[in-house]
Amino acid sequence: MEDKITAMIPARLGSKRISRKNIRYMDQKPLIQYPIDLALDSGLFAEVWVNTESEELGRLVQTMGACFHRRPAEFAGDHATNREFMYEFVKKHDCDYVVMMNTTSPLLRESTVKKFIEFIRANDYDTVVSVTAQKEETFFRDKPLNFSLEEKVNSQLLEPTEAIVWALTAWKTKTFIRLQEEGKNPVFGGSLAKFVIPKDEACDLDTEEDWRIAEGILESRKTNREKRYVQL
Amino acid sequence: MEDKITAMIPARLGSKRISRKNIRYMDQKPLIQYPIDLALDSGLFAEVWVNTESEELGRLVQTMGACFHRRPAEFAGDHATNREFMYEFVKKHDCDYVVMMNTTSPLLRESTVKKFIEFIRANDYDTVVSVTAQKEETFFRDKPLNFSLEEKVNSQLLEPTEAIVWALTAWKTKTFIRLQEEGKNPVFGGSLAKFVIPKDEACDLDTEEDWRIAEGILESRKTNREKRYVQL
Repeated sequence: MEDKITAMIPARLGSKRISRKNIRYMDQKPLIQYPIDLALDSGLFAEVWVNTESEELGRLVQTMGACFHRRPAEFAGDHATNREFMYEFVKKHDCDYVVMMNTTSPLLRESTVKKFIEFIRANDYDTVVSVTAQKEETFFRDKPLNFSLEEKVNSQLLEPTEAIVWALTAWKTKTFIRLQEEGKNPVFGGSLAKFVIPKDEACDLDTEEDWRIAEGILESRKTNREKRYVQL
Repeated sequence: MEDKITAMIPARLGSKRISRKNIRYMDQKPLIQYPIDLALDSGLFAEVWVNTESEELGRLVQTMGACFHRRPAEFAGDHATNREFMYEFVKKHDCDYVVMMNTTSPLLRESTVKKFIEFIRANDYDTVVSVTAQKEETFFRDKPLNFSLEEKVNSQLLEPTEAIVWALTAWKTKTFIRLQEEGKNPVFGGSLAKFVIPKDEACDLDTEEDWRIAEGILESRKTNREKRYVQL
């Protein structure tokens, strides 16, 4: 039988750095609607849940076609961690995998979500995190990490660094529950795989500037401007 | 006496990944004009040179107010390295520091260039590279670099990685020439400092997608859209 994969979108009404970001319009629709539309339109998930402490936000997401998981107040504070509210969620929803989709990733494409789900089904990892790969001369603790000061090589030849973006994360439910109950960290638990997503689908939404950039990128995808050159 | 600082903008007419990118319009002006305007408007440089093998491009940049340094054909091929064409340039232009500004950084702001020049003047480094800092869980060679699989911590608490962006690079001319003549790599030569630039001023221009993103970001800076929210 095919694995049952459930989408879970964590969303609080109060957000600290950008105020009420989940209900703020980004380009044509509220931020919370991006992962909901993506999850529903993809047709890849058995269920699509929004995990929020807010009744009002819960009612809103239901009008968008998602289910409302009411997060208990004790897991809704600023210090609530992923593992606590995830554990509360997976204990109540029977599924083989839960895929966390963050509202802070409005640039994610359906084709990428499809490949991510195919990757989960084709393998048997306990945890799959999404990463972006960078081939750039990188320092860590003030020392060159993937290059040498003795020579300058073409950046295409550099070993990449890979950064977790939290746009898409998948956990095998059984493993997640077991590790949490054993007092171990389930977030990177069991057999762990990285899944590379395109760089232009990852973004930060920590500042107003980040917000405008994401909006600019969304707009730039719609326009197919003519290339114009200087006549020499 | 104040150090003489010269700006040098390397630019070829033929570009491989994005065709003729230097004379292609990005938003309101050709790509080559971004670093030229930035360097001239800042008033920080004794001289502003474009280093190109192309006579036509040389004439164009002169109409924009830059000086034309004709790069000899032997340093204009696909395999010409920074150190070779830089050496040829600094041997011919007397200055204390040369600052390389790349045309692939149209998002760079004047305030950042100002701080960069102040940093050079206030210190005595042989080489200053510009970097962006990332606080993200990062893998290198499949191993966690700045985080532990045993716990999930707030990303604000992570040690950053820093990646070189080549938007702005400064070399002390004397040291650069000496190292090159000794057969050593001058690109990261002598005492080396990193200068952190804001993330939204760095961009790639390797693909058409990158191009549209940079254009979207430039546009997003101009608009000051009203914040709109869903009424709950």
